[in-house]
Amino acid sequence: MTSLWQREPVGVVGLGLIGGSLGLDLMAAGARVRALVHRPATAARARERGLAQEVSTDPAVLEGCGLVVLALPLDRLLDPEPALVAALPGGAVITDVGSVKGPVLRRWQELLAAAGGGPRPSRFVASHPMAGTARAGVEAGEPGLFRGRPWVATPEAGTDPAALQAVRELAEVLGARWLCCDAEAHDRAVALISHLPVLVGAALLQAADAGGGEPCAGEDAGAGLERALASSGFADTTRVGGGNPELGMLMARTNRVALLEALGHYRHSLASLEAMVAGEQWLELRQSLELSHRLRPDFL
Amino acid sequence: MTSLWQREPVGVVGLGLIGGSLGLDLMAAGARVRALVHRPATAARARERGLAQEVSTDPAVLEGCGLVVLALPLDRLLDPEPALVAALPGGAVITDVGSVKGPVLRRWQELLAAAGGGPRPSRFVASHPMAGTARAGVEAGEPGLFRGRPWVATPEAGTDPAALQAVRELAEVLGARWLCCDAEAHDRAVALISHLPVLVGAALLQAADAGGGEPCAGEDAGAGLERALASSGFADTTRVGGGNPELGMLMARTNRVALLEALGHYRHSLASLEAMVAGEQWLELRQSLELSHRLRPDFL
Repeated sequence: MTSLWQREPVGVVGLGLIGGSLGLDLMAAGARVRALVHRPATAARARERGLAQEVSTDPAVLEGCGLVVLALPLDRLLDPEPALVAALPGGAVITDVGSVKGPVLRRWQELLAAAGGGPRPSRFVASHPMAGTARAGVEAGEPGLFRGRPWVATPEAGTDPAALQAVRELAEVLGARWLCCDAEAHDRAVALISHLPVLVGAALLQAADAGGGEPCAGEDAGAGLERALASSGFADTTRVGGGNPELGMLMARTNRVALLEALGHYRHSLASLEAMVAGEQWLELRQSLELSHRLRPDFL
Repeated sequence: MTSLWQREPVGVVGLGLIGGSLGLDLMAAGARVRALVHRPATAARARERGLAQEVSTDPAVLEGCGLVVLALPLDRLLDPEPALVAALPGGAVITDVGSVKGPVLRRWQELLAAAGGGPRPSRFVASHPMAGTARAGVEAGEPGLFRGRPWVATPEAGTDPAALQAVRELAEVLGARWLCCDAEAHDRAVALISHLPVLVGAALLQAADAGGGEPCAGEDAGAGLERALASSGFADTTRVGGGNPELGMLMARTNRVALLEALGHYRHSLASLEAMVAGEQWLELRQSLELSHRLRPDFL
């Protein structure tokens, strides 16, 4: 039996890193891809790059799509244009790619329940492909982005199993690893492993700036010593913390409760390490660092 | 005029990553290198690898050296064997490669002042080549380790300028970038950019472990969800935090006061970010993340 993405056109809303990469891989797999974008300049560039067979700024482009992927930034996903919601085909399966799932699920259940004649709420499948986000915009899409990466769906009791299966087949043709879990569990997990590292690294940059600033005599006189001496360890620890500020803020805003809970765990762990240093408990400190050392491979 | 390392044999004490790399590069530059190691098995392997022209477990190997580099771990550097101190040639320039400078400088000033007939305290030059430390042991040494990396010296008012110059010429023949600063300023800087990231990353690993543990339904059922979803951002942020526990503990122990000060700055920065999330101050949060984003390139 063929998959939904093979039988009917696939709509992609937004052609940034995720949407553009989806378009490229889906077309390569033989799908017909129809994309909706916001600005005419984006549409023109997306056509040049060949990110979809049809690209339009008119929501009517989604007509006839059996499966629509909302590849929008979190703020636009949570506050979509009414014209987009109205244009979603009645029988379609809808999924999203947002990095927070609880608020998206609640919002789209409401929106679809309110919009009579559109897709049924049971056919909205919240999902999250965990693919790199360093680049953004219409130039960012690339083939193979999802290969070997987790693609997490967060179905509810009322989710239509056929809709879930259709999204699973979409993820699998892109080479992603399919996972299902509860939306709240997903949001707690990404708070710990994706959103917390942003704040942890951002705070480190600010601490190195606030705590330093000694001028350095020698070849680099005048530059702050911290800046002259920082090496790959500092660069790695701060990579996501020094990343896209808008994205970091949106993640925190949409996943606020789980992030605050994660920060609580973090404060506790850090305070425990700090107490060992302050109390000169060197054996305990080494044991604690040994725990971290043993934990890390499980997360790779 | 020729440099001291060209005129007289160079002693290297310890043939781990730093000492072994020193030996390889110095011999390639034409120096005569005499190395002292602790264990006979290390000496045998160092000879096989050709890390020095002479390798011995007998401190007498240092006889006749004009310049001796103490390439020992911090704990052995701060508590050296009396036989090593006694074997240092009277007229020699002595330097070290420890990642903390104040305690090393104080300890070796005492040791050399107490040991009559050995090198004069004014000819001890505390220094710190900032080169990678992921690998350790006699297999770790490699050519070119110091090329383009900072080599920081922390002379005092009483330091012999000729001794400082001799160490500078050693660093420069290895391709390192020479810097001088106050020992306390060095220790504060490395606390912020090198030792603090260890605790920051170690705490993140422990928080992700403590806060998570949800079993994940789907292909990876049974594995914790955080472990299944963690990606390159988490891996990078925790790289040094999940590193060598012994090294992390020694850094904290020898640089305790500066590290506690750095932790104070860090707690303040993190608390400020957390307050913005808790207070839903999204504009302020974005501005704060913009500051971190702007700061980072200066540290690369």
